[in-house]
Amino acid sequence: MKPTSHPELSKKEMLAAVRAGRAAWERRLQELVEIPSVSGDPDRKRDVRRAAESAAQAIRDAGGDAKIVETGGHPLVHGRLRAGDGLPTVTVYNHIDVQPANEPEWKSEPFKLLRKGDTYVARGTTDDKGPALSALAGARLARERGVRANVHFLWELEEEIGSPNFERTIRAHKRELATGSVVVSDTVWVSRRQPACPAGLRGLQGFRISLETGATDQHSGTTGGAARNPVAELADLVAAMVDGRTGRVKIPGFYDDVVKPTRAELRDLARCGFTTAGFKKDHLLRSLRVDDPIEVMKRIWLMPTMEIHGIAGGYQGPGVKTVVPPRATAIVSCRLVPDMKASKIVALVRDFVRARCPDAVVRPEHALEPFRGRTTGSLPDAIRGAMKFAFGKEPVFVREGGSIGAVVSIEKVLRAPVHFLGLSLPEHGYHAPNENFDWRQAEGGMLAFASYFDRVARLG
Amino acid sequence: MKPTSHPELSKKEMLAAVRAGRAAWERRLQELVEIPSVSGDPDRKRDVRRAAESAAQAIRDAGGDAKIVETGGHPLVHGRLRAGDGLPTVTVYNHIDVQPANEPEWKSEPFKLLRKGDTYVARGTTDDKGPALSALAGARLARERGVRANVHFLWELEEEIGSPNFERTIRAHKRELATGSVVVSDTVWVSRRQPACPAGLRGLQGFRISLETGATDQHSGTTGGAARNPVAELADLVAAMVDGRTGRVKIPGFYDDVVKPTRAELRDLARCGFTTAGFKKDHLLRSLRVDDPIEVMKRIWLMPTMEIHGIAGGYQGPGVKTVVPPRATAIVSCRLVPDMKASKIVALVRDFVRARCPDAVVRPEHALEPFRGRTTGSLPDAIRGAMKFAFGKEPVFVREGGSIGAVVSIEKVLRAPVHFLGLSLPEHGYHAPNENFDWRQAEGGMLAFASYFDRVARLG
Repeated sequence: MKPTSHPELSKKEMLAAVRAGRAAWERRLQELVEIPSVSGDPDRKRDVRRAAESAAQAIRDAGGDAKIVETGGHPLVHGRLRAGDGLPTVTVYNHIDVQPANEPEWKSEPFKLLRKGDTYVARGTTDDKGPALSALAGARLARERGVRANVHFLWELEEEIGSPNFERTIRAHKRELATGSVVVSDTVWVSRRQPACPAGLRGLQGFRISLETGATDQHSGTTGGAARNPVAELADLVAAMVDGRTGRVKIPGFYDDVVKPTRAELRDLARCGFTTAGFKKDHLLRSLRVDDPIEVMKRIWLMPTMEIHGIAGGYQGPGVKTVVPPRATAIVSCRLVPDMKASKIVALVRDFVRARCPDAVVRPEHALEPFRGRTTGSLPDAIRGAMKFAFGKEPVFVREGGSIGAVVSIEKVLRAPVHFLGLSLPEHGYHAPNENFDWRQAEGGMLAFASYFDRVARLG
Repeated sequence: MKPTSHPELSKKEMLAAVRAGRAAWERRLQELVEIPSVSGDPDRKRDVRRAAESAAQAIRDAGGDAKIVETGGHPLVHGRLRAGDGLPTVTVYNHIDVQPANEPEWKSEPFKLLRKGDTYVARGTTDDKGPALSALAGARLARERGVRANVHFLWELEEEIGSPNFERTIRAHKRELATGSVVVSDTVWVSRRQPACPAGLRGLQGFRISLETGATDQHSGTTGGAARNPVAELADLVAAMVDGRTGRVKIPGFYDDVVKPTRAELRDLARCGFTTAGFKKDHLLRSLRVDDPIEVMKRIWLMPTMEIHGIAGGYQGPGVKTVVPPRATAIVSCRLVPDMKASKIVALVRDFVRARCPDAVVRPEHALEPFRGRTTGSLPDAIRGAMKFAFGKEPVFVREGGSIGAVVSIEKVLRAPVHFLGLSLPEHGYHAPNENFDWRQAEGGMLAFASYFDRVARLG
């Protein structure tokens, strides 16, 4: 059914409205970031629920309805700003839980909103409460201007702990969560100067590879030479799996399903504002495996990895204690890219380890599959148009090197296309001390979301 | 000067004397093992000194003189049972400090002597207070039977912490410690059925190899692929240095100075009572790199090693935390055999690491050089004769896989030949819970030492 048309949005008029509402929006941000909704901290369980309730109230105050959905863990919030039956529905995904904030580098109280000019400092400002409230404000703007689309909100409170209950819960509530498309607002531009949207996420498959060759620490003078050394055997094993210097994975077949970047993707990489110097600075890295920016971006976004996170077991203290340890565990994970399948990587790693070190035990962790979104078609074009409307520039489509488990679950369970409209900047400090968000991104985000809902409405 | 002759020793008569003195010897053992002289525990500093005083008193009670020698750390005890100027002097080295005893497997109080039949259970019974008191009793026996040799005792109280002050102290007291030869009683037979003396010790050279590529943990989704991974690079590096499965060191030149075993050494290995099954059982090892007993003995006694003790850095906890760590350290040590030189091994490792991973930093630890004793000549023959006199069988000469720093220092500073007359058995549990010693070894040891002093006296 073709929706009745509604008037064109005026950027100037909307900007005036947004600015008039700034103080109210800041109060709402303050209320939400001052609830320490650290999902990973069992002592914060009640705070996480309080944050869900505050977030639901924000949706109601914007003219919507909202309910708390139980998951068995921390709840979900599902909200709706309804325009009418038969109109297009678009769901915005954000999360309201936050990372812990115990880094000593915090210069202010992490759970107290500090306003410095246009900047808002507190845990959760950019990841992901500020973007969530910007999208909500955008939906309200659109609704007040007669945009004929239903906007739903799916706000998770377990994102920072890997979404353990998300897929099961949305499956159980599949009918009420039904939607035409989903837009995720939990990603970071590459540079402030250039809007960027990921069109793909890496997946993740973790492993613990353990080897036990004895029962207790043994004196290396007494047994060394004859006793097997599980730390040395695992070092051998992981060195055979991945070249530590180049990062090249040496397991045959590992790269078989990696999709090569298109010309358009490579063109967008070149335009996205990435610099190697900035990347090194942001992540405090002394040196990289490569320095060419395109090569760096390929490696962090388009290529899979195998990371050795640690080799646990054996002596770890100061000096040298000459003991042959009885057991060790290599902690390993692979970031996966389209069209790799986590189950195939598990099988490759298992077979490789079995052939090389038969008494090592491989324990795979829960998998997150890689995700690849579309960059052509009406919805990506709507994203382009909305970003240009709000920020003056079309976004480039890049990739995200991390994994958002919820994205793959949404696509799978709700069978709706997923796109990204992120508002955060590298300097906002995702997961870092002194996390912040800023009014420019908030204001632009409100306009971008309103414009996006408008465009989706017009698509019918 | 040829000493005046003294009467032949009678085993039967001496055994009767030893048995008559058993209760007094046990009281002395009890007094000494009930002082928890754990040199590695700063809270036991006073106990270590009390043990030195008790040990010195034991020497005085045996008719000798004894003094406490300050080292800057825990003291040394130097005692003398003098027979006369111009007579041969032999020095017995033991140590009176002990390992900690906090293993949960202890079935009785570790610092309370438990007598079960002929077995004495307590920390320090076999390592090394029981052998020390057996040697002292042997010296007294010899003296009472007119053996014309001066017997000195050099009892260390920092052996279990690597003898940090020993060499400097004996150098400072070189003149009063002057001796014709030294016999060390701090080693373990291979089997109860066959007396065994080491004729060589492995040396030790530890290293910490560190690599720093960043400043803080980084998210592997955000940086993984481009960021260097110091754990993976060090795994690569150590895998290039040593084959974890076979133990073969791959650094060129590492084995160049290893002395091949002689036929006599190989013959003694075959006779020493070693079994692979017993070795695995004693050390709770599930599987070994090789199973042939001669091959196992070669690897633990005659061949150098490179052991990876641990790779510190990165995530070590449960599950998989997907972080690229900023730094890691490989903790490595090499056991060295004659004629390897620790300084050459340091240079080889440094050059290898520099060529392969130029920004890794190699920090060598204090070195212990390998030691090789003589198995032919009058003193080894005296050891053979004394063991046969006491235990009914000549000893085999084997090697010791561990390192006793004091031995190399003694040879170097006092310029006296060092031989071994150990009394401990594998089942006594060196460094293990429920450590024990037994009267058969004590009694035999007293006779063996008396006979050895007698033989040295007759050599003049």
